[in-house]
Amino acid sequence: MSHVPSLHVAVIHGPNLNLLGTREPSVYGTVTLAEIDRELLARATKHGATLESFQSNSEGALVDHIHAVAARAKVILINPAAYTHTSVAILDALKAVGVPTIEVHLSNLSQRESFRQTSYTAAACVGTIAGFGARSYYLALDAALAMF
Amino acid sequence: MSHVPSLHVAVIHGPNLNLLGTREPSVYGTVTLAEIDRELLARATKHGATLESFQSNSEGALVDHIHAVAARAKVILINPAAYTHTSVAILDALKAVGVPTIEVHLSNLSQRESFRQTSYTAAACVGTIAGFGARSYYLALDAALAMF
Amino acid sequence: MSHVPSLHVAVIHGPNLNLLGTREPSVYGTVTLAEIDRELLARATKHGATLESFQSNSEGALVDHIHAVAARAKVILINPAAYTHTSVAILDALKAVGVPTIEVHLSNLSQRESFRQTSYTAAACVGTIAGFGARSYYLALDAALAMF
Amino acid sequence: MSHVPSLHVAVIHGPNLNLLGTREPSVYGTVTLAEIDRELLARATKHGATLESFQSNSEGALVDHIHAVAARAKVILINPAAYTHTSVAILDALKAVGVPTIEVHLSNLSQRESFRQTSYTAAACVGTIAGFGARSYYLALDAALAMF
Amino acid sequence: MSHVPSLHVAVIHGPNLNLLGTREPSVYGTVTLAEIDRELLARATKHGATLESFQSNSEGALVDHIHAVAARAKVILINPAAYTHTSVAILDALKAVGVPTIEVHLSNLSQRESFRQTSYTAAACVGTIAGFGARSYYLALDAALAMF
Amino acid sequence: MSHVPSLHVAVIHGPNLNLLGTREPSVYGTVTLAEIDRELLARATKHGATLESFQSNSEGALVDHIHAVAARAKVILINPAAYTHTSVAILDALKAVGVPTIEVHLSNLSQRESFRQTSYTAAACVGTIAGFGARSYYLALDAALAMF
Amino acid sequence: MSHVPSLHVAVIHGPNLNLLGTREPSVYGTVTLAEIDRELLARATKHGATLESFQSNSEGALVDHIHAVAARAKVILINPAAYTHTSVAILDALKAVGVPTIEVHLSNLSQRESFRQTSYTAAACVGTIAGFGARSYYLALDAALAMF
Amino acid sequence: MSHVPSLHVAVIHGPNLNLLGTREPSVYGTVTLAEIDRELLARATKHGATLESFQSNSEGALVDHIHAVAARAKVILINPAAYTHTSVAILDALKAVGVPTIEVHLSNLSQRESFRQTSYTAAACVGTIAGFGARSYYLALDAALAMF
Amino acid sequence: MSHVPSLHVAVIHGPNLNLLGTREPSVYGTVTLAEIDRELLARATKHGATLESFQSNSEGALVDHIHAVAARAKVILINPAAYTHTSVAILDALKAVGVPTIEVHLSNLSQRESFRQTSYTAAACVGTIAGFGARSYYLALDAALAMF
Amino acid sequence: MSHVPSLHVAVIHGPNLNLLGTREPSVYGTVTLAEIDRELLARATKHGATLESFQSNSEGALVDHIHAVAARAKVILINPAAYTHTSVAILDALKAVGVPTIEVHLSNLSQRESFRQTSYTAAACVGTIAGFGARSYYLALDAALAMF
Amino acid sequence: MSHVPSLHVAVIHGPNLNLLGTREPSVYGTVTLAEIDRELLARATKHGATLESFQSNSEGALVDHIHAVAARAKVILINPAAYTHTSVAILDALKAVGVPTIEVHLSNLSQRESFRQTSYTAAACVGTIAGFGARSYYLALDAALAMF
Amino acid sequence: MSHVPSLHVAVIHGPNLNLLGTREPSVYGTVTLAEIDRELLARATKHGATLESFQSNSEGALVDHIHAVAARAKVILINPAAYTHTSVAILDALKAVGVPTIEVHLSNLSQRESFRQTSYTAAACVGTIAGFGARSYYLALDAALAMF
Repeated sequence: MSHVPSLHVAVIHGPNLNLLGTREPSVYGTVTLAEIDRELLARATKHGATLESFQSNSEGALVDHIHAVAARAKVILINPAAYTHTSVAILDALKAVGVPTIEVHLSNLSQRESFRQTSYTAAACVGTIAGFGARSYYLALDAALAMF
Repeated sequence: MSHVPSLHVAVIHGPNLNLLGTREPSVYGTVTLAEIDRELLARATKHGATLESFQSNSEGALVDHIHAVAARAKVILINPAAYTHTSVAILDALKAVGVPTIEVHLSNLSQRESFRQTSYTAAACVGTIAGFGARSYYLALDAALAMF
Repeated sequence: MSHVPSLHVAVIHGPNLNLLGTREPSVYGTVTLAEIDRELLARATKHGATLESFQSNSEGALVDHIHAVAARAKVILINPAAYTHTSVAILDALKAVGVPTIEVHLSNLSQRESFRQTSYTAAACVGTIAGFGARSYYLALDAALAMF
Repeated sequence: MSHVPSLHVAVIHGPNLNLLGTREPSVYGTVTLAEIDRELLARATKHGATLESFQSNSEGALVDHIHAVAARAKVILINPAAYTHTSVAILDALKAVGVPTIEVHLSNLSQRESFRQTSYTAAACVGTIAGFGARSYYLALDAALAMF
Repeated sequence: MSHVPSLHVAVIHGPNLNLLGTREPSVYGTVTLAEIDRELLARATKHGATLESFQSNSEGALVDHIHAVAARAKVILINPAAYTHTSVAILDALKAVGVPTIEVHLSNLSQRESFRQTSYTAAACVGTIAGFGARSYYLALDAALAMF
Repeated sequence: MSHVPSLHVAVIHGPNLNLLGTREPSVYGTVTLAEIDRELLARATKHGATLESFQSNSEGALVDHIHAVAARAKVILINPAAYTHTSVAILDALKAVGVPTIEVHLSNLSQRESFRQTSYTAAACVGTIAGFGARSYYLALDAALAMF
Repeated sequence: MSHVPSLHVAVIHGPNLNLLGTREPSVYGTVTLAEIDRELLARATKHGATLESFQSNSEGALVDHIHAVAARAKVILINPAAYTHTSVAILDALKAVGVPTIEVHLSNLSQRESFRQTSYTAAACVGTIAGFGARSYYLALDAALAMF
Repeated sequence: MSHVPSLHVAVIHGPNLNLLGTREPSVYGTVTLAEIDRELLARATKHGATLESFQSNSEGALVDHIHAVAARAKVILINPAAYTHTSVAILDALKAVGVPTIEVHLSNLSQRESFRQTSYTAAACVGTIAGFGARSYYLALDAALAMF
Repeated sequence: MSHVPSLHVAVIHGPNLNLLGTREPSVYGTVTLAEIDRELLARATKHGATLESFQSNSEGALVDHIHAVAARAKVILINPAAYTHTSVAILDALKAVGVPTIEVHLSNLSQRESFRQTSYTAAACVGTIAGFGARSYYLALDAALAMF
Repeated sequence: MSHVPSLHVAVIHGPNLNLLGTREPSVYGTVTLAEIDRELLARATKHGATLESFQSNSEGALVDHIHAVAARAKVILINPAAYTHTSVAILDALKAVGVPTIEVHLSNLSQRESFRQTSYTAAACVGTIAGFGARSYYLALDAALAMF
Repeated sequence: MSHVPSLHVAVIHGPNLNLLGTREPSVYGTVTLAEIDRELLARATKHGATLESFQSNSEGALVDHIHAVAARAKVILINPAAYTHTSVAILDALKAVGVPTIEVHLSNLSQRESFRQTSYTAAACVGTIAGFGARSYYLALDAALAMF
Repeated sequence: MSHVPSLHVAVIHGPNLNLLGTREPSVYGTVTLAEIDRELLARATKHGATLESFQSNSEGALVDHIHAVAARAKVILINPAAYTHTSVAILDALKAVGVPTIEVHLSNLSQRESFRQTSYTAAACVGTIAGFGARSYYLALDAALAMF
């Protein structure tokens, strides 16, 4: 991966991800969202990119944020979490701003409830990385940086 | 249409409509939501009615607003956008306040994805006007004014 | 709406609409189809347009008429009534002639039986106006005139 | 059954029933539609009622006829045949005219293709008699006469 | 209908029909099941036939009874009531004994809940008569007597 | 809860509930149906009400019992168990007798097989209490007593 | 193909096919229905067969015509167009007359909307030829002539 | 198969199986249920096992019997017949008693109506043997004896 | 119920419940949400428990609140209202915090629209109490207190 | 059809077609696949074209062969037989190589099991010819030759 | 079972069965496919029959083998494993060769994923034996030998 | 990523991927499968791992290969291509060998036909990477190497 000057990455975390690492560590591990964000920032910085992170439990706030970061971000990494399966509004937001987006999931949704097999948001994304825990984000960042 | 004293119209715009006219003008045209609101206000004023507009990307804020305007509005024009297809909460809000409501859509949903063929909110509305771009709103205002 | 010279509008009414106003007035009101047609003609004339109306209970006759008026009409207003939900033939006719068409319904179909939630014909239309009784037609005429 | 003065019965036969008795006698028997109509008329006359019969292969003509006979008939016997499963227009016609109607079928639809298990028209009828061949009509006439 | 010596008719009533006429008379009328059975017997006797009636709320008892009457009955009139929609056992019983059977319903099932649109038992019957209240039974008896 | 003179409560237990507490105590606990019935009787008596309990594995016997207790009970508590999902006959029985009924379940059906997500009987009930083990019954009794 | 004396072929064209070649030539080509009929007649004549063509936009008229030609045709070529997907009446007509029939489609329906994947009429046909434009008819004629 | 002292087998036959061999011998053969039971007993005795048989047309009686035999049987052979497809109560009974159970069917259900493709009871069984007529029972007995 | 020191109960009300008692009193009664909360507090206090209530129309705010109260509440009573049927985010929040939760509904959802038959949130709850109006909350509190 | 120099046709037969004519001649006729291939070659040669045939029971071998013949064939005739309904791999192969392809079936699939109503492969084909036995191939060859 | 001279049995094992006993012994046991085949051969020999076994992971090779063994086998025992649920080709092969076939499964499919509830191949089989591990094969052999 | 001695990676490419880069370069790019394999090998070597690649168009050969590489591979990268949506056999193979597997797709399946929205194989995989073209493989290799 060559030097990418002035590439800005927006990381967006959906509902309940703020609890990561602080609850049910036996299930979700002990890595916190703050640690993931720090690691993402460090990796982005190493590649000469800038990176900001945002988390919200509110569908509307996530839509607002997608609108806002679109002015400054070249690429979006989004883990819509529960809204993956229910939010046409986030799908429409991603389509409207037109910023290349990568969908990220911690778990392999194919092994969970049937209502988690449907993704509204994936239709607005370049691609999806799912099932690798925190590493799903780091792989997505690699994919994002490699686009430019 | 005869003179309608003290008729107050509440216009409610759902998620992503704030981007109208500023993004993808080749698809959605160059008319902004502010311009639509100004045109609606002018038309309402001409008919002796008052009119207020509200936009939010948040389902909850839209429900809050429906509750709030119900005290002063005789009729509601709502474009629930993405929430048309996913929000039982907005349906329930409209049913609860009992203000006559007209559903508005810029595009003809019949020509889009299958999940856009379902409207929760329409069941709480007098009628629907869809497919005429910004003019859908003006026709809905005409329909609203003609009710009184 | 500016002056529209030589704009010809074709109004097409589907099955059972001939009974309008003469049966079940408590449900459908006392306005007859003839009165709606007269009002539409008066409004069209006022805008410098010409207008003709046609009603049939036969799917085939409706297809024939769509073919016939396509040569002289700049826009079609159609209330396919029951055929909305069952006629691929009318859909194909509207697509084949390519005249801009507006779908009109007296009632809000979202509040009726599930088989009335499907519209074949809407896919061939610019837009839809539904739920305003006879006024649905007048709003559709306004929308039609405003297209030119 | 007591004397029923001036009771007029309208019998309506749907598509392909004109072929009855002239084709595939091994399947449908050798009784013709004319013979059924004559038998119905004789039975009605015997009960002091009048009766007229109508057959058409056209959905629109059947709708037209329902509208027409509604002015003079106290009860309708209808075998919608293939239109049972596809015609919302005939359902709407029967609902609009509001004349008590009995649905008749020669065969037991429960033993045929799955698309014959759905009846649009039954929702507008008092009841259904199916599976008794020509006798389905005679039983329906008995039911009709007994209503008055 | 000519003289039918030694024709025996078995009438079988399914669950809850024992309440007929004693509960909710405004809905189901005031005719009791005993009165229907008496009327059926009188009518059968008048035609030289014999007739027995049976009611049970138990699916198993209904199957037992179908087996038992098969030895002596030439025709069965059955109103499976709720079991129409849920009993494969009654379907199999009717098929196994092979006695010509007519399905009877008091109400028009087409106007009720969607789960009442499915009949397991109809597939084992000659025909169906539904929607005429107590008269559905009398028409079914006429149909049965006319078979022989 | 005030004194309720002469209020009679009928408790009805569906199939397999007779095994409660005697089989698989690690799953269903060690409380037996007899103990639940004794506790219900004690609680009812304390509130001045009378109470009788009935259990059957037979759909027909349950229908019979609903008919029988309707003459003396002011309210029914029913745990239809497996018949919740398959019995239209019990639904019809409850609707026919018109006694206010509360549906009770030991387990939370939302966490079990998909065929347990459908309840025929709930449509005939005032409300449902599910998931609290034996306590579901006691809460239902409280709800029942509070109705009068 | 040997000499086929006195073989009469009936060609039946369904709704909207009368527009062929005169509208949207870039989509459907410039060949008209009249030209197809002439070519079919020429080819039939060359093989010693006679041929007649019929087009109607009316389902009922198509049923009438199937009845009528059955007396003189040995084989039917039918392009039911939109009625392929909605007409049980045409299916029943073809089954009733029992004349060997070949279903023809200009386009490959497998590449169109999902509602065009269902054919009622094919169940009454010997076979289907679809996707070759006007040539579909000529291939069907070859297939028809080869049957005798 | 070694000597199995004091192994008790419970055979349970569902609805309509009592008719076996006495009705429609051309379809179901001339072997009666009594003969099957005798053969099963002889085979069990030969292997040093004891065996009892039970048949009922009542779902409730079958549940009662499953409860009763659970105290003395080491294995159950059940042919739930029609209740295979409709009885959650029998499924729950088998699960509750926890006795190893083998499901038996005379015919190959895969070649019958679609509603016979669903088995509630199989989920509570070790395995299924279907399609071999009376021999299905004998194979199931072999499988049962081989378990111990 | 014995003394329960320091047991804290969190009551959470979903969208539109703030309107309770102030709109459509003929439908929903005249009890307000504030009155329900006061009654719940009084009952909790009487049992030595503490209790807090929260209402929001926003899915995100409800998720935020579930996260926040999880630190201090031993049990949650939640009426997710419209979000019952559409919110995977609330389901995930309840699962993540792991606080025992009881789902409450004022009305019996089994008697309403089909989309209200699905509950995402119930899968994360101990049990459900529905259909008893304001009393549903009081019964749920009793159930909650009895857990400790 | 004019002279077509150097036109090469690839005929591909799917699973079980190698048995043609050697098994169940009363059902499938006595024509063997070798005879069909010889007749196809003779017809192709007569038109100045070359032709090769290939049969395999293996989905993978069929995909391999499609890849291989794509270099030399101008047109493909394929009867995917059972793979019509299950093979996305063959669909993808045909799409990838982009050679114009005609789908052939011996029987009329519309009259067979419901799983045979779905064709994956048709979406990659110009058109389909089905129901004419061996002649389906010859008509397809005519259609292929006429394309060039 | 009497002496069966020259009865040849073909055993066919589908995909992944070659791994039996060598992988996941805690799940599938330690019996290998070779051991099953040896046991089958010993049992067949004891009854005077001959037996051959074949395993392949390829659908096409399984079809080829079915064709090949049909010439010498009087009966086929097949465990189609994963192809049970996806292979129309194997269904067609079994139907085409017409050799009596018994379907065998090691596990009880009723307790596994929903896509394993569908069997294409069962429709071509005499019967099915499932859920008894290796013994399923031995029971199937017994059933096969007993057919002759 | 630290040094990973003796880590062996198996890359498996499904049907039609052998055509990559040689056909439709405007759609799929000009990178060939050989180039992807070389790049994967170089990257693996750089991390001290060994890597082998395999491609087949045959489902059976892919199952065979999964069995074979399981003995030597610590991790599998698989792009099942079309078999993703149709192969239970590959799912079973991956489950049986128990080697950690990552599913790779070149395109974002969420934007393609509905039958491509279902993945059988994903249920046997750790995670999925889709939509990044050739880079999907490289990201999957990174994910694989990071597991050890």
